Amino acid sequence: MAFGWIDEQAELRRRAGLVRTLRPRAADTPLLDLASNDYLGLARHPEVTEGAAAAARTWGGGATGSRLVTGTTELHAELERELAAFCGFEAALVLSSGYAANLAAVTALAPHGSRIVSDAGNHASLIDGCRLARGATHVAAHGDPDAVRKAFQEHDGPALAVSDTVFSVDGDAAPLAELAAVCRERGAGLVLDDAHGLGVLGDGGRGAPHAAGLAGADDVVVTVTLSKSLGSQGGAVLGPARVIGHLVNTARTFIFDTGLAPAAAGAALAALGLLRREPGRAARAGAVARELHGRLTAAGLEAVRPDAAVVSVRAPSPEQAVRWAADCRAAGLAVGCFRPPSVPDGVSRLRLTARADLSGAEIERAVRVVGETRP
Amino acid sequence: MAFGWIDEQAELRRRAGLVRTLRPRAADTPLLDLASNDYLGLARHPEVTEGAAAAARTWGGGATGSRLVTGTTELHAELERELAAFCGFEAALVLSSGYAANLAAVTALAPHGSRIVSDAGNHASLIDGCRLARGATHVAAHGDPDAVRKAFQEHDGPALAVSDTVFSVDGDAAPLAELAAVCRERGAGLVLDDAHGLGVLGDGGRGAPHAAGLAGADDVVVTVTLSKSLGSQGGAVLGPARVIGHLVNTARTFIFDTGLAPAAAGAALAALGLLRREPGRAARAGAVARELHGRLTAAGLEAVRPDAAVVSVRAPSPEQAVRWAADCRAAGLAVGCFRPPSVPDGVSRLRLTARADLSGAEIERAVRVVGETRP
Ligand SMILES: Cc1ncc(COP(=O)(O)O)c(C=O)c1O
Ligand SMILES: Cc1ncc(COP(=O)(O)O)c(C=O)c1O
Repeated sequence: MAFGWIDEQAELRRRAGLVRTLRPRAADTPLLDLASNDYLGLARHPEVTEGAAAAARTWGGGATGSRLVTGTTELHAELERELAAFCGFEAALVLSSGYAANLAAVTALAPHGSRIVSDAGNHASLIDGCRLARGATHVAAHGDPDAVRKAFQEHDGPALAVSDTVFSVDGDAAPLAELAAVCRERGAGLVLDDAHGLGVLGDGGRGAPHAAGLAGADDVVVTVTLSKSLGSQGGAVLGPARVIGHLVNTARTFIFDTGLAPAAAGAALAALGLLRREPGRAARAGAVARELHGRLTAAGLEAVRPDAAVVSVRAPSPEQAVRWAADCRAAGLAVGCFRPPSVPDGVSRLRLTARADLSGAEIERAVRVVGETRP
Repeated sequence: MAFGWIDEQAELRRRAGLVRTLRPRAADTPLLDLASNDYLGLARHPEVTEGAAAAARTWGGGATGSRLVTGTTELHAELERELAAFCGFEAALVLSSGYAANLAAVTALAPHGSRIVSDAGNHASLIDGCRLARGATHVAAHGDPDAVRKAFQEHDGPALAVSDTVFSVDGDAAPLAELAAVCRERGAGLVLDDAHGLGVLGDGGRGAPHAAGLAGADDVVVTVTLSKSLGSQGGAVLGPARVIGHLVNTARTFIFDTGLAPAAAGAALAALGLLRREPGRAARAGAVARELHGRLTAAGLEAVRPDAAVVSVRAPSPEQAVRWAADCRAAGLAVGCFRPPSVPDGVSRLRLTARADLSGAEIERAVRVVGETRP
């Protein structure tokens, strides 16, 4: 029977305790949220939701076509100008998701005959970009600029290094300055996914590349998502105008995809406005993360020192990680739970995200619950 | 220099007259729109835009996380129930775009050792799905069930046929009944992308698979987009609950992507409500397309007989296609223009889309402008 093999896989998952199910949430839940990527607490901010609502009213429910046909509104153009200006790049291109932005950047910048050197800890969307690209991919050890240098040396022709700025599982930062230096030695391009850096790192949340002095460089291309700190949906590629023009002409996930919905563009624009007016939000998210980490380790838990707003806590096994997260939830705390196959190293963890709008009492409560439910 | 090769490519594009640029549109333009995929004219419908606005207010600007973590709201669950019910399937899974839905369906259903047989005219997102999938892809001649049968015969193990229901360039329909018969002979799965069928074909717009009696079959999986007839953004996979459960557990563009923004879900739900209440919209879109085609061919233009709401008109060359579309625009009519490399056969065309809400006078005006500006 068609799809018969699916049932065998489902049975294996069931036996391994790895079945994932969807749990629809209500609009208002008493759960304390340390699971979302809403780092600045902006997704429910009235200016952001009104930005979405007003954009839908003015521009419609959808963009109605590819960005190259009818899908570019003046709102998209405004968002692109503002993203580029805020993050310090010459130009920006908005896509329907951060995932699509990563596919676009990597595939468009790694032509046939090129070599891509991709960090072993990179996000799935960068990995899929590498797999779709015409260039050949070499996976380099995690966070290791020397490994990137060696991989470059083995190859002639165009080369590209690809890395998350903040890795989504452990929340550790990539060595951006060293990575850029290695790329420059070689004349290679550098694609940085700042999904977890934008809004949290850099001056007022301008992102990790801005903090590393790489914003606006002619050999650096940055991807961001509008779905985390900006509380919306969508993604963007930031870089030199010539690179953005190249993507407009060649990136399949840009050309053959409907433009971002106006409401999402409106929400992201409103969030950027808030970041400009209230630049302290970014630093506050980082401070909350460091406080969470300090208190968790003081309580004897093994947590990775956070470079941004993600705090990763080790669990002894996948089963115990799942039970731990469930016990947190039962005690009123939502946390993320990463386990195989989503974690390349096979280590299961709880993933806590710091939000800029968490109060001291909420932080205390979160730490108490995580400690009391530990396996 | 990094990205130096980009300038050479840009120069080649410039010389070939193939440079694409973005043209931001205003919220209200006097242009008559026959370029968008807003087939039912719902993108600006007040119920749809209010659906978006209300959802943003209630649920926030974004979904805040992966559907597996915090990104599944009750609104997403409601949209999935309604999409499945409307189109006649057991279950549905909503993703952030139609592109992501196609990547999810094809990659999850074509494991290592399987063979994918993909129609030569398939959309870029299905092609990228094939390229990302672990199975091996065979490209079959366009609209040719016999070619699919032959490709199946050459292979043992799981097999999957993949096809658009309505091809986006020429607007021609796939031979669904024959394709399903070939798949059943073989015990193969069938993935159908109904991006241009939903809302236009089938009883009240239930889509091409519904019209072909394939809705709810245990060997058929359908992908749809929320960005065309439903006037929003997003995509969905429809199929048996076991297949949807498999996608929840394995599809990377589902697992590692932020959930669809609430506003987009709200807009699509409102559009589905309108389709239920006003089932005549779907047939009207088809009738407008046939009227456009009849008048264009009567005026001596070479147009493909439309099976849905897309009317494709041949242009003598890429340059003339571009000039023709520009002349239409100058005369107040927006039309699409397809040319290499977006058209696999190298034939450039104007692409006109019928909207259910076009008046007789608007149809007449469109035909007059296209005729008067012909090269
Ligand atoms: C590092 C990283 N890059 C890209 C993405 C994809 O962004 P989006 O969810 O907006 O598609 C995510 C998360 O979803 C991410 O964590
Ligand atoms: C046939 C087809 N499939 C899939 C898509 C992708 O859908 P979306 O634009 O919603 O991502 C499109 C158009 O964009 C399409 O024409």
